[in-house]
Amino acid sequence: MRLLVVNSNTTEAVTARIEAEARAAAAPGTVVETVTAPFGLPLIVTRADWQVAGTATLAALGARAGHYDAAIIACFGDPGLDAAKMLAGVPVLGISEAAFHAACMLGKRFGVVSFTRDLQPMFEMCLDLHGLRGRCAGFRMGPPFSGDPGKVAEQAVPLVRRLVAEAVDEDGAEVVIVAGGPLAGVARVLGPEARVPLIDGTAAAVSLAEALVRLSPSLPRQLPRTPVGLDPALSALYRG
Amino acid sequence: MRLLVVNSNTTEAVTARIEAEARAAAAPGTVVETVTAPFGLPLIVTRADWQVAGTATLAALGARAGHYDAAIIACFGDPGLDAAKMLAGVPVLGISEAAFHAACMLGKRFGVVSFTRDLQPMFEMCLDLHGLRGRCAGFRMGPPFSGDPGKVAEQAVPLVRRLVAEAVDEDGAEVVIVAGGPLAGVARVLGPEARVPLIDGTAAAVSLAEALVRLSPSLPRQLPRTPVGLDPALSALYRG
Amino acid sequence: MRLLVVNSNTTEAVTARIEAEARAAAAPGTVVETVTAPFGLPLIVTRADWQVAGTATLAALGARAGHYDAAIIACFGDPGLDAAKMLAGVPVLGISEAAFHAACMLGKRFGVVSFTRDLQPMFEMCLDLHGLRGRCAGFRMGPPFSGDPGKVAEQAVPLVRRLVAEAVDEDGAEVVIVAGGPLAGVARVLGPEARVPLIDGTAAAVSLAEALVRLSPSLPRQLPRTPVGLDPALSALYRG
Amino acid sequence: MRLLVVNSNTTEAVTARIEAEARAAAAPGTVVETVTAPFGLPLIVTRADWQVAGTATLAALGARAGHYDAAIIACFGDPGLDAAKMLAGVPVLGISEAAFHAACMLGKRFGVVSFTRDLQPMFEMCLDLHGLRGRCAGFRMGPPFSGDPGKVAEQAVPLVRRLVAEAVDEDGAEVVIVAGGPLAGVARVLGPEARVPLIDGTAAAVSLAEALVRLSPSLPRQLPRTPVGLDPALSALYRG
Amino acid sequence: MRLLVVNSNTTEAVTARIEAEARAAAAPGTVVETVTAPFGLPLIVTRADWQVAGTATLAALGARAGHYDAAIIACFGDPGLDAAKMLAGVPVLGISEAAFHAACMLGKRFGVVSFTRDLQPMFEMCLDLHGLRGRCAGFRMGPPFSGDPGKVAEQAVPLVRRLVAEAVDEDGAEVVIVAGGPLAGVARVLGPEARVPLIDGTAAAVSLAEALVRLSPSLPRQLPRTPVGLDPALSALYRG
Amino acid sequence: MRLLVVNSNTTEAVTARIEAEARAAAAPGTVVETVTAPFGLPLIVTRADWQVAGTATLAALGARAGHYDAAIIACFGDPGLDAAKMLAGVPVLGISEAAFHAACMLGKRFGVVSFTRDLQPMFEMCLDLHGLRGRCAGFRMGPPFSGDPGKVAEQAVPLVRRLVAEAVDEDGAEVVIVAGGPLAGVARVLGPEARVPLIDGTAAAVSLAEALVRLSPSLPRQLPRTPVGLDPALSALYRG
Repeated sequence: MRLLVVNSNTTEAVTARIEAEARAAAAPGTVVETVTAPFGLPLIVTRADWQVAGTATLAALGARAGHYDAAIIACFGDPGLDAAKMLAGVPVLGISEAAFHAACMLGKRFGVVSFTRDLQPMFEMCLDLHGLRGRCAGFRMGPPFSGDPGKVAEQAVPLVRRLVAEAVDEDGAEVVIVAGGPLAGVARVLGPEARVPLIDGTAAAVSLAEALVRLSPSLPRQLPRTPVGLDPALSALYRG
Repeated sequence: MRLLVVNSNTTEAVTARIEAEARAAAAPGTVVETVTAPFGLPLIVTRADWQVAGTATLAALGARAGHYDAAIIACFGDPGLDAAKMLAGVPVLGISEAAFHAACMLGKRFGVVSFTRDLQPMFEMCLDLHGLRGRCAGFRMGPPFSGDPGKVAEQAVPLVRRLVAEAVDEDGAEVVIVAGGPLAGVARVLGPEARVPLIDGTAAAVSLAEALVRLSPSLPRQLPRTPVGLDPALSALYRG
Repeated sequence: MRLLVVNSNTTEAVTARIEAEARAAAAPGTVVETVTAPFGLPLIVTRADWQVAGTATLAALGARAGHYDAAIIACFGDPGLDAAKMLAGVPVLGISEAAFHAACMLGKRFGVVSFTRDLQPMFEMCLDLHGLRGRCAGFRMGPPFSGDPGKVAEQAVPLVRRLVAEAVDEDGAEVVIVAGGPLAGVARVLGPEARVPLIDGTAAAVSLAEALVRLSPSLPRQLPRTPVGLDPALSALYRG
Repeated sequence: MRLLVVNSNTTEAVTARIEAEARAAAAPGTVVETVTAPFGLPLIVTRADWQVAGTATLAALGARAGHYDAAIIACFGDPGLDAAKMLAGVPVLGISEAAFHAACMLGKRFGVVSFTRDLQPMFEMCLDLHGLRGRCAGFRMGPPFSGDPGKVAEQAVPLVRRLVAEAVDEDGAEVVIVAGGPLAGVARVLGPEARVPLIDGTAAAVSLAEALVRLSPSLPRQLPRTPVGLDPALSALYRG
Repeated sequence: MRLLVVNSNTTEAVTARIEAEARAAAAPGTVVETVTAPFGLPLIVTRADWQVAGTATLAALGARAGHYDAAIIACFGDPGLDAAKMLAGVPVLGISEAAFHAACMLGKRFGVVSFTRDLQPMFEMCLDLHGLRGRCAGFRMGPPFSGDPGKVAEQAVPLVRRLVAEAVDEDGAEVVIVAGGPLAGVARVLGPEARVPLIDGTAAAVSLAEALVRLSPSLPRQLPRTPVGLDPALSALYRG
Repeated sequence: MRLLVVNSNTTEAVTARIEAEARAAAAPGTVVETVTAPFGLPLIVTRADWQVAGTATLAALGARAGHYDAAIIACFGDPGLDAAKMLAGVPVLGISEAAFHAACMLGKRFGVVSFTRDLQPMFEMCLDLHGLRGRCAGFRMGPPFSGDPGKVAEQAVPLVRRLVAEAVDEDGAEVVIVAGGPLAGVARVLGPEARVPLIDGTAAAVSLAEALVRLSPSLPRQLPRTPVGLDPALSALYRG
């Protein structure tokens, strides 16, 4: 099975982290290819960034069309997800979508933790789009952030440890999502010491994508259309 | 007051209809400028189109930055709206947003009618994003559509008349939104004969934009950022 | 355009504050007339007061019937609003309704602040009646109150400043409503120093009423009826 | 136990029906006193009527203050209910409130049937105010109504029989409320032939009021206040 | 009237407390019989316990079938409630169900307090099953618990007093439920000093069961079925 | 990976169908073991059955404790699921849970179809327990059922085909769940001709269980407890 993983931001170091986690999570026989958004922003933070990153993500998916059996949008917030599902013809999962659904299957209510509260409004919009607000025990987020997204994972481990404990003890979370593409792999580090399951969106998306390919390998696509002036790869997706 | 109205699809005939309705709705002293999306699709139908049209809409807004006191996204579904609000520094309204809020102020529950049910999934996502599902009495939509969006308004009048009656009689709508940029002006035609107020999204957005400029003429913008590879006009919006 | 503004409590000093803010907010050409509830209570605090003030508000609206193109119920909680909408034949807005809708158009989630938490249960019922709970980031309210409602505005400025900051920093509000008829004008004072837009319900209602009159100048009224023993002005509204 | 039952409309024939049903439902030892609204409308239909009837109901409650251990507002829609609860110092129940709660305890989802769909918007607002929308399987309502509310009960039996069947068969109702003060007693007639429990709001309110008096005979009242210009009996309620 | 009260846990001392409170709450003429779950757990804490206790409760109900006019499941969380309602042919109430509905009729929003937060996840599931989340002002719960459920009531009085105050002052509760079978009777002790009504689930269930028997003495049962290998008493319930 | 699949009803022919579908869905390397509920009912239809089947399911899980890496509760409605998750120490999925989550990942709104509407109240409770009501486009169900659950699958194919079409055309479902353990395998038959993905709960559960074992192979269990009088296998689960 060929799995395309798109990092929706433009920071290669984040792509590298995501790739490492995706490969660690993949089953034998899954070939992981990772790409970085061809344009956009070094970190996807706001609902404005979400819009911009969505189109960049579609362009990345279009550029590799035909070369994957499923795709993952490896940006918490799932930019471009609905569009990708309608255009790709194969399963596409966002890492927040995957994290939310995996968490629901492992506990009644999930907490969400991440390194900066700057992300919370985008995360909340995403949670509402998935219709899963009622399963969320709350958000526990770090301070405003202005650093290098490629380096935040190592620094954030103690912060994430503390936020996980708060999610469990204060919010009653029965499972905790360690959210944000730049934190890929942190749940794997902290999991063994945690009292509840920790979910990494990238790992969840890899495993669930493998499951969906088995369940429903081809999916309906929206009717071919003729867009004007789009990125050529995205345009090709539309033309069907 | 200078008001920029963006048609998020690429059909100039639709832009012309929207412009006529916007001018009919504008107060004396409001100068209406209308632009057509610089790229994208001739009609915005699906949630995939919504993503693509959102970025095109932002590009259109960026290209005229500094030349308007408020902006309207004249595409039912409001593509790019959240991003535009964060980047523009002035009030930006979507025509579905405006229609929903105007309808709420004129009746307890509103119906939504349009010329094709192909639009309903995008409209429903938009309704949920605005958090107003509970105020909606239901959708009444026409058949699948494959015609010319620039010509649908004239043809659709009898259909819309019937759907409005169903919304009132079957769904208990106390006010009805005639939805879809291509139907701009139809509510003005049918309004005098209707038993409940009919809302045209474009007209509602013009009047509400005038109100918001008076109430809150400048708005916070998100912090300047440095995107890579975006449409230059959109990039300029981001750089602040 | 003639705009009638009803203060639903009986405190003339509050009417005066509301009038000043309504006039400051009105467009040129809007003639503002303000009236005080002919009976009732000096401050509308509880859900019981809301019932009583609703009927007083209808009586005030009836007494001036035919002399306004739109009306505003200038009491946060919107007593009598639904009834007024069904009886008046012209747009009627409550100041909480107007504040909620204006806030929704200026930010994703709004905070509500006011001088006393005694008001919160009534405000929450009102929020639920408008179906907008999901857009509210939370309430931040001052201590129990037993003072003169005509004088609270000046004293409350430092309190409101602090509550606004909490709404933004703790609750993630992207826009904040300074609620309560007695606080009319306070948002105008604090707005320039705030990081997010501040909404004054009276100002919002004036601008939105102007918009609605343009959009939908006449509205259906419920069928004439013959009540018994009502305040004559209210009875006349009913008789149509 | 002394129970005051207020008919919120001004039609004495409806009061008589309500009284008969209340007496049939009362336990031995419960003394039922019934009063008719001292002013208002012959039938409470709309949300406007609800406002007007609420104040009339409070006046009726005030006029008999001190002479009852619990009170019932015998008008589906529960006009004045929240205010009455805050002012009375004893349990007060609305007949829709009582019907909804009794129905919830007898089945998972309840249907609501009544003689005219004119009532539905008011009933829906009432249902939302009680926060029980999720327990409602749907409304099944008769045609527009312009007859004598005192005579509708006899005529409506075949209609109600049919609507009950639809609620069970089409909507999956496990219990059905026969709604509307003018239909008091109809559930008692049709109950023996029905496949699910039928709830009469008046009967439910009588039994639940008896239960609440036993559980919580005295209740906190809001602080005494000094209203101006109210109906003397209502004013007395306020003064404490 | 014969009322069967089932303690769903196996601790006889808790049954004794429940019996005392049920008898204190019962009207003259109500004969209270109390039974302890024939198998299961000494305290029902988790959602797993809820499943196990549900079947034990049904067995207890089956063992006394034909000997009661109504039944109460005296375990906060209401294990087995839906099944009991479908099998018993007479009214069955859970003590959380009864507490929630009684609280709704006595105040707009209710708080829930109990001796240990270990119970909260089960209580929340129960609240959601009843569809009453929107009426709940919040939970205030004591520390983790590992003591004797038969002795917690006396020890918990100061804790409950404090939690009630927090529910009122911090959460705006207008009525407070003292939850948990082992706390039966505590609301009766603390009620006189509280500022809002305190609800004991057992007492509420007794009074409401008396009301329902009057309203709807016989109820439909699901069709007879032939189970295999069940507890004989439960099997008999199924066979009808 | 060892996967235990429990049929929660006592009909061996249904177990056989479920086993065939589970094996068809399983990845190479997954060993499927199927067991039938040791006691209970031949078909799980009502919320009462759900309670009884939950305990039977736990007993089945307990009897094979230590012999599986994940378990599936192959009964639409998911009896015993929450308890099983807390007691098993490994991933446990219900087939409705799996179907709902898989469907959410393949389309915005899912329809649910099954052979008899008798199942709908239990299915709706289950949907609400998972918090996914907002993602459901509606139910389309066959007539009342009194046949042999082991033979319904073959007979139901034409009915299911029609109901799927209604779900897509009338309800706007973007993916359809063919619900009910007795229909295991029907989605596999009808899938190739359907316009949207069809989901079989058993197949979905197998694939998702494989994914969860990879993601989170061990899970926290609730603290050991000492139950009294339970089925020995269930008791052993409790003792830890």
